[in-house]
Formats: sequence, C-alpha cells, structure tokens
Amino acid sequence: MFNKRTKIKVLLESDQANYETTVMGWVRTFRNNQFIALNDGSTNNNLQVVAALGLLDDATIKRITTGACIKATGTVIESLGKGQKVELQATVIEILGDSDAEKFPLQPKKHSLEFLREVAHLRFRTNTFGAIFRVRHSLAFAVHQFFNDRGFVYMHTPIITGSDAEGAGEMFKVTTLPLDGTAPKNDDGSINFKEDFFGKSTNLTVSGQLEGELAAMAFSDIYTFGPTFRAENSNTTRHLAEFWMIEPEVAFNDLEDNMNLAEDFIKYIIKYAMDHNADDLAFLAQRLEEEEKQKPQNERSEMGLIDKLKFVVENNFERLTYTEAIEILKESNHNKKKKFQYLVEGWGVDLQSEHERYLVEKHFKKPVILTDYPKDIKAFYMRQNDDGKTVAAMDILAPGIGEIVGGSQREERLDKLVQRMEEMHIPTEEMNFYLDTRRFGACPHAGFGLGFERLVLFVTGMTNIRDVIPFPRYPKSAAF
Amino acid sequence: MFNKRTKIKVLLESDQANYETTVMGWVRTFRNNQFIALNDGSTNNNLQVVAALGLLDDATIKRITTGACIKATGTVIESLGKGQKVELQATVIEILGDSDAEKFPLQPKKHSLEFLREVAHLRFRTNTFGAIFRVRHSLAFAVHQFFNDRGFVYMHTPIITGSDAEGAGEMFKVTTLPLDGTAPKNDDGSINFKEDFFGKSTNLTVSGQLEGELAAMAFSDIYTFGPTFRAENSNTTRHLAEFWMIEPEVAFNDLEDNMNLAEDFIKYIIKYAMDHNADDLAFLAQRLEEEEKQKPQNERSEMGLIDKLKFVVENNFERLTYTEAIEILKESNHNKKKKFQYLVEGWGVDLQSEHERYLVEKHFKKPVILTDYPKDIKAFYMRQNDDGKTVAAMDILAPGIGEIVGGSQREERLDKLVQRMEEMHIPTEEMNFYLDTRRFGACPHAGFGLGFERLVLFVTGMTNIRDVIPFPRYPKSAAF
Repeated sequence: MFNKRTKIKVLLESDQANYETTVMGWVRTFRNNQFIALNDGSTNNNLQVVAALGLLDDATIKRITTGACIKATGTVIESLGKGQKVELQATVIEILGDSDAEKFPLQPKKHSLEFLREVAHLRFRTNTFGAIFRVRHSLAFAVHQFFNDRGFVYMHTPIITGSDAEGAGEMFKVTTLPLDGTAPKNDDGSINFKEDFFGKSTNLTVSGQLEGELAAMAFSDIYTFGPTFRAENSNTTRHLAEFWMIEPEVAFNDLEDNMNLAEDFIKYIIKYAMDHNADDLAFLAQRLEEEEKQKPQNERSEMGLIDKLKFVVENNFERLTYTEAIEILKESNHNKKKKFQYLVEGWGVDLQSEHERYLVEKHFKKPVILTDYPKDIKAFYMRQNDDGKTVAAMDILAPGIGEIVGGSQREERLDKLVQRMEEMHIPTEEMNFYLDTRRFGACPHAGFGLGFERLVLFVTGMTNIRDVIPFPRYPKSAAF
Repeated sequence: MFNKRTKIKVLLESDQANYETTVMGWVRTFRNNQFIALNDGSTNNNLQVVAALGLLDDATIKRITTGACIKATGTVIESLGKGQKVELQATVIEILGDSDAEKFPLQPKKHSLEFLREVAHLRFRTNTFGAIFRVRHSLAFAVHQFFNDRGFVYMHTPIITGSDAEGAGEMFKVTTLPLDGTAPKNDDGSINFKEDFFGKSTNLTVSGQLEGELAAMAFSDIYTFGPTFRAENSNTTRHLAEFWMIEPEVAFNDLEDNMNLAEDFIKYIIKYAMDHNADDLAFLAQRLEEEEKQKPQNERSEMGLIDKLKFVVENNFERLTYTEAIEILKESNHNKKKKFQYLVEGWGVDLQSEHERYLVEKHFKKPVILTDYPKDIKAFYMRQNDDGKTVAAMDILAPGIGEIVGGSQREERLDKLVQRMEEMHIPTEEMNFYLDTRRFGACPHAGFGLGFERLVLFVTGMTNIRDVIPFPRYPKSAAF
C-alpha cells in the first residue's frame, strides 16, 4: 500500500493540529526555497508545506518546480500566515515526478481560456478548471440524489439508435461498413444496411425521451442522464456535438406538475452545489468579477455569481404562455425602436435567442417558463391543447444562457398522436413500439430535457460551453 | 395538477390505515369483478384495490383488463387477505387508458425471456423486469454514492474519440460522410477525413481510461460511469455492443490499493442493493430457484441468490498471482483428466473462460483476484514488474459471470512506457497528451474498469446480459 495520506481538503477543514501525517500532490508554487503551495485536487485551496531550513539539498530544491508531484511527511501545525488555519511542517519531502519548468505548459501566471482549451489534458490542474469540474461533479451527484430520493428509476436509454424519428437535429452515422465505396449495395444502388453491424442504418441518439416514455409507463417515474449528440455545424459558445442530457419522464404528470418538477429540480441541484462547493464557487465568482471589469460599465452583470444563484434558488420562476410573451415582446420599446434583429410582428413564429434574453434579462430579470407554444414549431409528441393551435410545451429560459430546459406534456391520445405524425410525415410503422404505450394502458404523462453543460455554465459563471466539459467535441475538433 | 397520488411502495410500507387517498397504476389482474392487483412500478408488490359491490357498472368492469391504466380513490384499510397488511377500498375507479385484452402482448401468465426480449418496450411491466431494473437503478445510485462519499470526482470522458490506441477491441466508426463511395478522397485514394465532421477519423470509445488518467493527475481520485462500445461479432450471453462501464482512476494507488478499492466497491454496491431492494431480490431469488429446478441436479447452484450475495459481501476475495493460478490449473484433476477444452500446459497463455470458472466455481468457490499477468497478454499501459516478464495487472473473476473487473497499476515511468509502446507498435506521436502526464508530475497510480451489466447479471441472478440493459444492442439488433 502506497496510498497512505491525508487529503488536503480533510486536513484544511479539520480543526486539529499537532499531529503527524503525509500528503501527496502537485506543486503550484515554491518560494524562498522553503514554502510549497501544494494541491491534490480535493479542494481549490492549497496546503502550505514548509521545509525546515537545511532539510532540502540543492538538487532537491531545483526539482521542486510548478507541476512536480511530491510526497511530504511532517507535522500539521497552526499557521501564522494569513488565509490558512494550518500548515504542514515537513520533515521528509520526496519527489514522485519531476516537471521541467522550461517545458511545463502551465506557468504560475494567468493563462487565457483559449490556450487552456489547447492543453485540456492539463487544464484540470488550474484553479479555474479545478473549481469547474468539482462543481460539475457536485451537480451530477445532486441530479442522481434528487431523483433517487423521489423514487425515480435511472434508465440507461440506448446511445446507438435505429430510430431517427425524433427529429431533434442532425445525426451522426454509426457503422462498421467501409466509407470508400466498397460497402455492399442493393440492386437500386443504395447501401445494403442489412450487411452493417446492426443489420440496419444506425445513428447516435439525439434524445432518450421516446425510450424513457416506454419505461415511465411501467415505473411511473424515470430519468435518464447520458450523452446525446448533434451533428450540426454549430461553432458557437453554446453548442457541443456531444453533450450530456438529463431527461425525466413521469406518468400522471400534467404540464403544471412538469413545471413544478423542473423548477424544484433546478433549485435543488444549484442549492446542492452552493452547500457543497462554497470555496469553488467563491473562486469562480471572483474570476467572473475580474472578467466583468474588462467590460464597459453598461454591459456588466448587475449581480455577482453567488447573488445570481441565490436569487434563482430563492425566487419563483416566472410562468407565462408563449402568447403572453409575444404580446410583451411586440409592445416592448426594444421592438418598437427596432433594436431586435428579428422584429416581433405576429403570433406563430419561433422565438430567437435575442427575444428570450430580452424576456429573461431585461423584462422579468429571473428564470422564465414559457408554455403553450404554437404546435407547428414544436415536436409531434407534444400534447395538443383544446384551442387547436398550441401544444402543452414548456421551455425554461435562464439569464445569460437562454434555453436550459425543453419539455412538454405528451400526447397520450392515440388518434391525435397518429394524426399529428401523419401531418408531420413521421412514419408510424417504425414507431409501433412507441404507439404501443398509447394502445395499452396510456395515461397523461410529461417530461423534459435539461442540457447538463448549460446548467454547469450557469452555475460556474463561465461563458463558453467548451470550458465546462472535460474534452469538448465540436466541428473539426475531437482532440484527446 | 393531475398527479396527486400515493405511491404504492409508500402506501404498502406505511403502518398507517384508515385514511383517504388516490393511487394510479396498471392492472396486473382482476378477479371476481372486484379485486384489482394494481402496480405502479414503485415496488414489485401489487396493491389490492377492492371495488365495493355495485361501484362498477358492466361497461367499466369490461375495461378493467390486464395492462389497463386506472386511477382509484378510496380508503386504505387493514387487509384480511394474506400477504398484505393493507388494501384500498375504492369509492371511485376511473379508467385512464384501456388495454385490449385480445391484443395486449403480456398476459397474466409466465412468458419466456426470449419472447419478452422481443417486446422489450413492454417487459418493464412484468415482475421479473420490474425487479431487474429497480435493482439496476439501485446499483447505479450506489456507484455514485460510493465514490462521492470518498471524494472522487465524476468525469464525463468523451464518447466520440479520435484515438484508437487503447486497442481494447474493434470500434464503431462515427461519421457524417456518405457511405456510397462519394466521400471526398485524398490523392492516394484514401478517404479525406479532413472533410468529415471532426476533421479526422473518429470512433466510439472502448474505454475512458486514458482520459481518466489525465484527470486523476489533477484531482487524485476520479471515476467515469458511461457507455462504451465494442464492434465485435460476439453473439453470446455475456457480450453487448453497447454497455456501461465504471472506471475509477486513483493517483498514488499501487496494485494493492487498487485491489482493496475494487473489493470494497463491489461489496458496497451489492450490500446497497440488498439493503434497498430486498423485495426485488427475494422475487429474483425465487425466480432463479424455479429455473434451477429445471436443471439436472448436478448442474444446480449450491447456493441461492441471496446466500450467494451475502457470501460475497461477507468474505474476502481470494488473491493470487497468474503464476500461482497456472500451477493450480496445471495440477488439477480436471486438467489431468483432459476435461478442459484448452489444456493448461505452460506459463504465458491467456486463461480461457473455462479456466477462470474452474478457479472461481470449483477450486476457491468465491470471487478471485488474479494479479501479475504475463506482459505479452496485457495492455501497453500496465506497470512492468521487476521480473521483466509480468505486469501489475489484476482481474476480478466472479462465480457464474467470469471477468467482472479488469485493472492495473499504470506504468508511470516515461522511458518504460515509451519502450513498451514501441514494442507494441503504438504510435507515440498521437499519444503525446497521454505521455505528458508522465512528463509533468508523474506518480504511481492505478485504476480498473467494471462492466456494469455483468455486475447487474451477478446481482439479479439472470443469465443473459440482454436481459439486464433496457434495450440491448448486439449484432444485427438495434431495435426500439
């Protein structure tokens, strides 16, 4: 057994002192040939390791560089320095792994986020990315805890799918056939997918919802949490080709139940991170504040990160219909003064990101749940309202992020569902497994999808989605 | 709000009676025009709903069929029937969704597992699959709880990967290029992957380990839990093309630490399921016992399911080296009497499934951890032992399942790692990101991968891996 050590988080959070222990971690800084700031990733805070005068020979001193991995044994004592209660007075320091200061890409200075994206395999060792991924962990754990506590069953819906009916976006092909033209063909010249691995054409999933509905018709309450994919050429700060999504689906929930669940859920997981990652969030709040200072006064946020999170947790989300939102937008000075790129003129059009941001950031200044969208801009499976024009959809819009949740009550009436599928040219034959849930013991039910990285963006105050997933995939990039 | 109900699990587990409530769920059976066995998926146990005489008219009685969804309101009273403490005396029964008894594929009788695989979208509504997927949920939650409690960071390693160096198996191609031969080509006739979505050839991941190691060199303790893929034409009861894997990676762990972690982990999650799914496991144990009765006496298990799980939780796993295992096998009567298909003759060959089963099921009769395998049958990243012949690998073998964990201490010495990669013809250039962890602050570290479905097989006593994942993917099948 080599791994006999105290984690730095445990050591720093304990009130104890005057005991012997060993720590291991990576050197952040080394000054006066005596003071090592050591980090082991368990917390954003470094432990000060103090080498007694004469303990280190010159050769060792040279090897204690930023990025080096060391093992230090000594006594935990109360610290006289500020910013820390305790420090380690080392009696043995051993170098586990060197780090050539000339070559190590991370220097003890501020690097740009762009540069750090290029060394994504090392950026976990910075304060910013350490904090981001510890917060991401807490949010992910909170997702499972929230649903487990409420008796939901976690379903692993398939990643490789033969169905392309959901139409949520462009899909990636999955195949073992050759691309060079030698793939087996049918008489009509089309590819003979019977010869492919799965005996049919397959893609990467865009959503686990349809399969989730199948399971909800047995367990009542289920959720998915897995990777989903979009093969869209979106080179933006808000889109990824591979991202993680959470999709609860609940039998017997109507649209109002669905909104309540989504709002409770978002508040719960944000509160969880605030309770468990106070140090990380304080660091990220500070980082954001410094970044904001670079902006012109009128573009800065009114609230700091922590205040913004508190505000979301403590206040009700604004709920209104799409129709009400269109009225607000149409009558806004912003619209009248033609400040929108896409002017809001009539009912029925999809909202642009600028409209959503106006509602959330200027008008209501809080998260907003928009409901009852025109059926023609929404998916086939959403429940048709009695007005014949709208469906029981809901989108949750968050300040600075835009759409973070999309959901709906589902159409449980077989005749109405089939009619809508035919109107939208969705082949019903391939979807018989899905229609079976309407044939046998159907019931009102509802669900939503939450894009996990958008939530992590919101909570960490970061602005580029590529900075909140370990190794981002986007057009022309699948590095590491 | 439509969803105002008491979950059947909560109702049955409470000691309370004589209160009004509403339940919703699916009819399992209906007898004497009066007694409904209702299930809502929250538990394997049905609630008996009793319709007072005269409450139901003939039309309604006809609609209360197996599979129908109903809402029942009434009084919870102490039950005089056996097998249940309480029942619901209904005053209102509403049909939410019909289920045509002539057409509903699930009848109130025993269906074969093969048939249920064909209606995988409905099999969640049977006792067997209800129990399996509630147990699967608990095991998944326990995975997160185990690691979260110990300060591990959950990493979402990439699903789409440009690296194919791990060599754990055949990979699926991911592409947006056409398959029909019109994909852009280079001058030499090869496919020009610069024109593909990611600007390079990409595949579905076979393991998150390499990326996990990068993160462990910053956070010390990380784990992954995500889907992994094999494009191998393995039509067996133990293989899937898409399966979920858990891969912890721990800085400062040596092989012994790694074995301790794996053993603690397996015991913890099995114990968690035993504590939280006693009813489901009791049902599955009963199912297994009945299945075993169909076998000849000498092929039956010596232990029932619950005893087997208890045995694993309460006893130490047997630990021995590959070399010791070869000696045991070579000297076994089984080998001498030529009962193995592959006779064990010398050191260096890989163990076959029959050898592993002999060790686990006949010789030790408990889970076994085999260590220190010949380097030539193991991956390039495993730490080379001083003997020059073996590596610090470990496999955990479980009774009835075979290999459930594969892991190792990793080679942290740059020169030895590069040398081994060259010997095994693994291009080091593409792997510079991985080698950087050995260049900058390397340390001893170790990790393992646990195939989640194999664990679910073991805990549920099922024998076909296609029965423990919601929608299995295997050669020529990607249904639903």
